[in-house]
Amino acid sequence: MNKKGARYSQVMKELKNAYEQDYHFKDGGILGSMCTKPHPAALKAHSMFIESNLGNPGLYPGTKKLEEKVIRMLGSLLHNKNAYGHVTGGGTESNITALWIAKKVTKKKEVVFPESAHFSFHKACDLMDLTPVEIGLDKNYRMRIDEAEDKISDKTACVVGVAGTTELGVTDPVDKLSDICNEKTFLHVDAAFGGFVLPFLKELGYKTPDFDFKLKGVCSVTIDPHKMGMASVPAGALLLREKQYLKSISRKPVYLTGVQACISGTRCSASVPGTYATMKVLGRDGYRRIVKSCMDVTFYLSKRFKEIGLQLPVEPEMNIVCARMKNPIRIVKELDKKGWKISKTRKPRCIRGVVMPHVTRKVVDDFIPELKKVCRKNGEI
Amino acid sequence: MNKKGARYSQVMKELKNAYEQDYHFKDGGILGSMCTKPHPAALKAHSMFIESNLGNPGLYPGTKKLEEKVIRMLGSLLHNKNAYGHVTGGGTESNITALWIAKKVTKKKEVVFPESAHFSFHKACDLMDLTPVEIGLDKNYRMRIDEAEDKISDKTACVVGVAGTTELGVTDPVDKLSDICNEKTFLHVDAAFGGFVLPFLKELGYKTPDFDFKLKGVCSVTIDPHKMGMASVPAGALLLREKQYLKSISRKPVYLTGVQACISGTRCSASVPGTYATMKVLGRDGYRRIVKSCMDVTFYLSKRFKEIGLQLPVEPEMNIVCARMKNPIRIVKELDKKGWKISKTRKPRCIRGVVMPHVTRKVVDDFIPELKKVCRKNGEI
Repeated sequence: MNKKGARYSQVMKELKNAYEQDYHFKDGGILGSMCTKPHPAALKAHSMFIESNLGNPGLYPGTKKLEEKVIRMLGSLLHNKNAYGHVTGGGTESNITALWIAKKVTKKKEVVFPESAHFSFHKACDLMDLTPVEIGLDKNYRMRIDEAEDKISDKTACVVGVAGTTELGVTDPVDKLSDICNEKTFLHVDAAFGGFVLPFLKELGYKTPDFDFKLKGVCSVTIDPHKMGMASVPAGALLLREKQYLKSISRKPVYLTGVQACISGTRCSASVPGTYATMKVLGRDGYRRIVKSCMDVTFYLSKRFKEIGLQLPVEPEMNIVCARMKNPIRIVKELDKKGWKISKTRKPRCIRGVVMPHVTRKVVDDFIPELKKVCRKNGEI
Repeated sequence: MNKKGARYSQVMKELKNAYEQDYHFKDGGILGSMCTKPHPAALKAHSMFIESNLGNPGLYPGTKKLEEKVIRMLGSLLHNKNAYGHVTGGGTESNITALWIAKKVTKKKEVVFPESAHFSFHKACDLMDLTPVEIGLDKNYRMRIDEAEDKISDKTACVVGVAGTTELGVTDPVDKLSDICNEKTFLHVDAAFGGFVLPFLKELGYKTPDFDFKLKGVCSVTIDPHKMGMASVPAGALLLREKQYLKSISRKPVYLTGVQACISGTRCSASVPGTYATMKVLGRDGYRRIVKSCMDVTFYLSKRFKEIGLQLPVEPEMNIVCARMKNPIRIVKELDKKGWKISKTRKPRCIRGVVMPHVTRKVVDDFIPELKKVCRKNGEI
């Protein structure tokens, strides 16, 4: 083998070694991630378009058209097939972009969001010198509407409601926020997780809250195809009711082809065909089937939690189940040593299982005895 | 074929159709992109780590270690093997992050950058309510040092120098900026393009300006592996001299594993092994060979430009060649219709060829007669 070939083989060996140190969805131990094994169509599309770069859209008119179709499909899912927007690198980028737009459009500085909001809102405030106005939670861990109403003022740049909180998977009363905002105050909804869950729960006959463009006051929605949308990472999206929102952040650099209206320059654009292919191949029936199966396992996991004597802070509203712990950090650490990757929450103190498609009944059956041992040892049960 | 199979085939057909509408580096007509066909090792590594997500680093310790190695390798390339930093989605994200850090560290508001700086600096100022202070250019299209010195003040959050301007590929006198900033004013260098060119030009015996951490005043450097680094998109990086810079933007969300110190949450982390593999397989000798070959074609293109009667605003300093045009927009549009994707600049008005590795002598030979025709027709020559 020549020197170049030897170097290549050596590097591939190192990659394999690194790969083996990572955790993988296929191995079943990941109970704390909002991502999952991407749909095969996503992987196929992702590889095909790996060179694509919507930071320079004139070179990629095919990918660009797929992005427009993705935005239209996501818009339809969220009750507004005429929504504007773009594919982003994920919920954080979408949320930052929404606040950037709100800041530009309103010229105001305060952002009203619940204590349960994703930490990207704090990041966005820090980045953009906006003032976070945090609202407390009611007994079901939803944003307190009375307090929100008190704190929304003529200084408010943006009000944020969450559809599927990161920690507990509950949904804020976005309908009431919509009434309060009344198409006068900018209302953003973070449905990064819930956007691909709530519409299908509704189709399955669950009583679910309205959270999207169906509510007149909602100006923008974050939704992540790379979470319950089964697309390849990184695939987020930001959807907007008005074209002027997008215009407020648009730029047309001379040396590039076309317009950029997003934070990123170069974008991981292979996720666009990845999302398109997944949504088209699965269809609403496919997603409904996935959500149903995740909910079945979710209820099974919550039953098994209770059986070993754990308490849930709330009954699961989507495929996230938390169980109270006195010392979740210790429990998570000990489970980690046994190869179980479950996460924790701060308010209330819990361990948190996200029942993504890779979390099957068999995974739950393998997990519960280990959890029971660790909880016993640490006096949690 | 069942319904599901039929749907899959239909979607793959649509993807193929979209793919055919895109332009591809392999077809040779792209003369205006700072990206190129990624190295085979990058593609291999990218596919292998496609599920990886450094937004949740505890699940991907193998990928995380590769990122640390990439930062160390980039640091060595830029004369500071102890640099801190992370892989980003590209130059725009790196530049925004640098300005975010400078804002946090200095608590000041003005950003001093040359007229030739990438538009991401305007984007960053808009996003973060910073005040852009633009500095004019000298006759070689470099930042005017006298004017910069005048405008740097105790209100300055950050001074930006460019190593390889997007339009002309020239490098600002970063050594002089370093003296002026004198380790007291935050100095950021945008070497998104030049970072993978200048060090190898130097090794090839070219007289190149210092631009990186070798200069004591340089606090942070943007460098893009997905440009001349031959990695898969999106792969940028931000390197920092001090650990406290990274700390100023760090967050440790309870429900995730590990710390986040970047704008993005979920990250296209497959680019990390993509970059690692490319850098290791190519090595400095590989990059040197690529840069040499790009420069050969660059000089050939500039010779051919002159032969047909075009004027260059500057002799090429790296693999970018511009030629003055009265109406570059029209020329670019007409070439576009013939399948040639060349870009244009605003100051001075030029067409702009970026001689990436996919731009061979043969491409130049095919291009020049077409260009000549279009220039003749439009009275440019």
